[in-house]
Amino acid sequence: MLPTTMRHWRLAAPGRDNLTLASALVPRPGPGEVLVRVGAVALNYRDLLAIDSGMGIPPVFPLTPGSDLCGVVVAVGEDARRLQSGQRVISTFEAGWFDGLPAGTARHPPAHTLGGVAPGVLAEYVALPEDWFVTAPESLDDAQASTLPVAGLTAWSALVEHGRLHAGQTVLIQGTGGVSLFALQLAVAHGATAIVTSSSDAKLDRAKALGAAHLINYAREDWVEAVYRITGERGVDHVLEMVGGAHLDRALHAVAVQGRISLIGVFDGFTFSGSSGLMLRKQVTLQGSSVGHRRALEVLVRAVDCTGIAPVIDRRYPLAALPEALAHLAAGPFGKIVIEMA
Amino acid sequence: MLPTTMRHWRLAAPGRDNLTLASALVPRPGPGEVLVRVGAVALNYRDLLAIDSGMGIPPVFPLTPGSDLCGVVVAVGEDARRLQSGQRVISTFEAGWFDGLPAGTARHPPAHTLGGVAPGVLAEYVALPEDWFVTAPESLDDAQASTLPVAGLTAWSALVEHGRLHAGQTVLIQGTGGVSLFALQLAVAHGATAIVTSSSDAKLDRAKALGAAHLINYAREDWVEAVYRITGERGVDHVLEMVGGAHLDRALHAVAVQGRISLIGVFDGFTFSGSSGLMLRKQVTLQGSSVGHRRALEVLVRAVDCTGIAPVIDRRYPLAALPEALAHLAAGPFGKIVIEMA
Amino acid sequence: MLPTTMRHWRLAAPGRDNLTLASALVPRPGPGEVLVRVGAVALNYRDLLAIDSGMGIPPVFPLTPGSDLCGVVVAVGEDARRLQSGQRVISTFEAGWFDGLPAGTARHPPAHTLGGVAPGVLAEYVALPEDWFVTAPESLDDAQASTLPVAGLTAWSALVEHGRLHAGQTVLIQGTGGVSLFALQLAVAHGATAIVTSSSDAKLDRAKALGAAHLINYAREDWVEAVYRITGERGVDHVLEMVGGAHLDRALHAVAVQGRISLIGVFDGFTFSGSSGLMLRKQVTLQGSSVGHRRALEVLVRAVDCTGIAPVIDRRYPLAALPEALAHLAAGPFGKIVIEMA
Amino acid sequence: MLPTTMRHWRLAAPGRDNLTLASALVPRPGPGEVLVRVGAVALNYRDLLAIDSGMGIPPVFPLTPGSDLCGVVVAVGEDARRLQSGQRVISTFEAGWFDGLPAGTARHPPAHTLGGVAPGVLAEYVALPEDWFVTAPESLDDAQASTLPVAGLTAWSALVEHGRLHAGQTVLIQGTGGVSLFALQLAVAHGATAIVTSSSDAKLDRAKALGAAHLINYAREDWVEAVYRITGERGVDHVLEMVGGAHLDRALHAVAVQGRISLIGVFDGFTFSGSSGLMLRKQVTLQGSSVGHRRALEVLVRAVDCTGIAPVIDRRYPLAALPEALAHLAAGPFGKIVIEMA
Repeated sequence: MLPTTMRHWRLAAPGRDNLTLASALVPRPGPGEVLVRVGAVALNYRDLLAIDSGMGIPPVFPLTPGSDLCGVVVAVGEDARRLQSGQRVISTFEAGWFDGLPAGTARHPPAHTLGGVAPGVLAEYVALPEDWFVTAPESLDDAQASTLPVAGLTAWSALVEHGRLHAGQTVLIQGTGGVSLFALQLAVAHGATAIVTSSSDAKLDRAKALGAAHLINYAREDWVEAVYRITGERGVDHVLEMVGGAHLDRALHAVAVQGRISLIGVFDGFTFSGSSGLMLRKQVTLQGSSVGHRRALEVLVRAVDCTGIAPVIDRRYPLAALPEALAHLAAGPFGKIVIEMA
Repeated sequence: MLPTTMRHWRLAAPGRDNLTLASALVPRPGPGEVLVRVGAVALNYRDLLAIDSGMGIPPVFPLTPGSDLCGVVVAVGEDARRLQSGQRVISTFEAGWFDGLPAGTARHPPAHTLGGVAPGVLAEYVALPEDWFVTAPESLDDAQASTLPVAGLTAWSALVEHGRLHAGQTVLIQGTGGVSLFALQLAVAHGATAIVTSSSDAKLDRAKALGAAHLINYAREDWVEAVYRITGERGVDHVLEMVGGAHLDRALHAVAVQGRISLIGVFDGFTFSGSSGLMLRKQVTLQGSSVGHRRALEVLVRAVDCTGIAPVIDRRYPLAALPEALAHLAAGPFGKIVIEMA
Repeated sequence: MLPTTMRHWRLAAPGRDNLTLASALVPRPGPGEVLVRVGAVALNYRDLLAIDSGMGIPPVFPLTPGSDLCGVVVAVGEDARRLQSGQRVISTFEAGWFDGLPAGTARHPPAHTLGGVAPGVLAEYVALPEDWFVTAPESLDDAQASTLPVAGLTAWSALVEHGRLHAGQTVLIQGTGGVSLFALQLAVAHGATAIVTSSSDAKLDRAKALGAAHLINYAREDWVEAVYRITGERGVDHVLEMVGGAHLDRALHAVAVQGRISLIGVFDGFTFSGSSGLMLRKQVTLQGSSVGHRRALEVLVRAVDCTGIAPVIDRRYPLAALPEALAHLAAGPFGKIVIEMA
Repeated sequence: MLPTTMRHWRLAAPGRDNLTLASALVPRPGPGEVLVRVGAVALNYRDLLAIDSGMGIPPVFPLTPGSDLCGVVVAVGEDARRLQSGQRVISTFEAGWFDGLPAGTARHPPAHTLGGVAPGVLAEYVALPEDWFVTAPESLDDAQASTLPVAGLTAWSALVEHGRLHAGQTVLIQGTGGVSLFALQLAVAHGATAIVTSSSDAKLDRAKALGAAHLINYAREDWVEAVYRITGERGVDHVLEMVGGAHLDRALHAVAVQGRISLIGVFDGFTFSGSSGLMLRKQVTLQGSSVGHRRALEVLVRAVDCTGIAPVIDRRYPLAALPEALAHLAAGPFGKIVIEMA
């Protein structure tokens, strides 16, 4: 029997102070929808931006934030035929983007994301179109699985879908946040050489344990020069640019001829910049990398089950501890922060 | 019978005033080399930068500038087997790059270009490795053919090799210089819709005559808004970014979802910049586009012969009129400026 | 006002003799469906196979054959939001395949086609899911537009989507049926060199008028030797293999190193064969080419409007003349046979 | 000091009986050549065909067979600048193919292979162009390294260069010969699921120890049905077709929608055949896979050093035991047979 009420987080206005854990009716799945009992919700840096500043969410309050879930289908709406009660599922972030080209235009780029224009998932139950879910990986628990839809798929799309990562290539990974550690694990799983940068020796040690072949403490040495040393000046085949802004120019120095830089992060601001001469002479591909489509997430799920990759979770928090979890996220965790429902 | 002496341009130091038309011995082809009697040399904006500021050339004077030639093989060195006397040839710009990956490293990117690190060609005769030439197109005269190695191949590599241009796509072409007009002609030859921007109605009229489907005078209207109007807000599939610098951000607004921007020009400075949010949400591919390899030039030659594309030459100058030709180039011609030897 | 009854063709059992032009109620669009008043239906060789032998259609009779239509939306079912009454549309052949990977498995390959597992369209009205249609090209009349969903898209997918056709390439096109003439027109529109083979000089003359650069009457000369002569032994970059069976081996002889053969036709039987040595040494890509997905059809529509390609229709027949139209199709038309409703 | 004479194998005419271990002068490196003291030569099935039947070799006897070597540069000819004495190198099989498009035409496909049209290497010393070698991997001994130029690179080109193998994909590998075991190791190194077929349970056990996820004894069950069972009917993403001939049709049944089959082997004859209907409906890419170019071999060397892949050698034989080694090869080894010089 399903309960009639549930808890969910409400954001009354931008700002963490405006979050409250509220009670609501458990929703009923409409035509084509399924009701999912949420097991875990992974937090992303982007949730923090949305909650703190309203960035990327519609100015219609109150709303429920959060976009990454793993849960179990507990009821099926009329005309829903893809999923059945009892199936464990994870959400897709860019809701309705199944494969190929997403909806959107030059003036209005794609923005139909869970916890953004589409509903958020920091709730005990959600009712959403069945097409917005994929089957969860068998090898992961709910908290681990909940990290795939955004952090896992972002790294996968950049390195595998766009980047055609293969053995013998070298990947430069900036930092040890959720996307970066997935990138590290994917690089290792594909036989590539991973170089991780951080300002913390402790985090670098943990990255080494995950398979990083080379570690650079950028607080102690120029990381581009370190890359030249490590690669015999050839440079790296892929850079995951997590910092963005003017830092991109460093990536242009570090990348190999005909190499690829995936622009992902915006920690250094929302305007990227770099040397045109390096772009041209090295024939660099700079790829603006969104999260990814549903088919890619399905392939990632297979890859995770096949390789045994276990997503790195820094800490798990109960639903009521969202404020503490967000504070931890803001402070820079090693891997992911996850809210568990149970 | 070959003459023993010839004329060539000597640059004694950076600065156009340091150019002199000098006499020299006709060189003899070494092992693996051919002697080419130059018929025409096309000038590029990059020659202007090199002559005026020394940019991109080694600080070893005097030297001969120029990189784009069409001519005839008149003598063949020992061990040269690919070419024969009497063959009409054009030069390759990135000397020694035949296919795939060029020589170079992250620290020292590829830079082995004619009229740069490799010898220049503003001379009546040049002796260079036979591997640095390809057969000239049959459908073009020497002056026209001399425009392919840099301007033609730059547009081709961006749109066709990297860009996989096809019918029904829309290409945004900035300005009416040599690369831009090649891009226009290639877009038309592939059944694509070309949009050309300029601040001159007269130049736009001439672009229309070459097949441009849409014309935007950016001095009279916001060209990004014009692109939205023309494309029904879908945006353009390819942008040839000839301005560079901060202007790239306008291209990010104009480009379609999953579109491609080829970064080519540096008129607005040597540092590009733009919105990270647009890069990410539109999943833009920003491609640093160098000129191209020898195999691509061979394919371009076939394409020119097959489609009947006639490169647009604004004006032809005799060898002695190089200063006037450079002044014309600096003033912004419609298409190419070519030096003819005859 | 819509009529209440309409005419449609019924196939009571395999065999052209079992076709009758019957009367039926005009269907009503269900949820997510639209009602389309059919303007024209193009016939395909595959319709002939289905009608004559039952191949590719479910053994559930009676049924309505036919798969390619152009028409106008005249009513919209509940929850249909993509299309509106008055819009002119064409059908998609592989119903429900929108982009990327279609539904289907290794054991049960994709087969959800109109006039096959999904309903047929040789009727004055059809009610089908709105997602199975795309907007018709503005530059074509109904009969012309009706040829795009199968014949046009088959050629497009082979040459453009899979084949990345570009100027300067050479395409070998076998025969002058509907797919072949689209391939010819697409090759010309992309600046490629088209070589057409036929045993009829009259048909070759008409192919020349459509832009074929080279013509080979294979009844008078060995067409592979002719290809060697025309291409200077380099071979052709693309072959559209329309004959299939053991004839594929000839294509393996004609194709260039690293060239591509699209396997499309089955005139010579349902088992293809060829020389392994040629496949390996030439590194040939043999592509099994189905028709194509909805996004590709949308791009083809843009390409047709942009290039002005006018599909070649050999003859138009009224609805009642389906038997004569099928006989014409069986005899080998030049281009397409179309049924017009008006 | 180099010796003046050496041993090498001479084939006086097709047929293993016509092999003799002869003495010859140690060659001197010509301009652009290096002299290599051979450490190990790996044997390939193709050497067997060449020796037994003369297939693929010019009818000019006597000649030296063999194509795969690892050795050390011991002298450098005039004008050779890429390599230096003391460097350990491996040969490239398709001599002179560096990247991109190889030399050759439709009529005369590429065939410039060591131990074929180019000289063979079953000798204690060889003098060959320096451009035909790449640096040997540091992590392998000579015998292991000698297996990369043909067997290793064939698997790499098929799966990685052409096939873009990635984690989560499923690869079907036929048998346990040299190419197959490299394919298995590469699949595992890229996080893919490898299915191996054999008629020998003992060999399957050894494949399992190398990381095969699934084993099929095709003598005991229908291997296609087994693939359906293992993959939940989805089929496999890649098939390495080692048998060829009519066996290809089985691969067409086993492969997934939009999957890829690399045609490599010719054990079942030099004519491949299969169902056109499966090719079309599944949109299969059938890739004729040659060995590969020099740049790919360089990347494979990096991949081997990076992943620690150790090529599987069934048995090593001394130079004088070539006949026994060939007999072993003909009997079907598990992995590679290598001739060691020491």
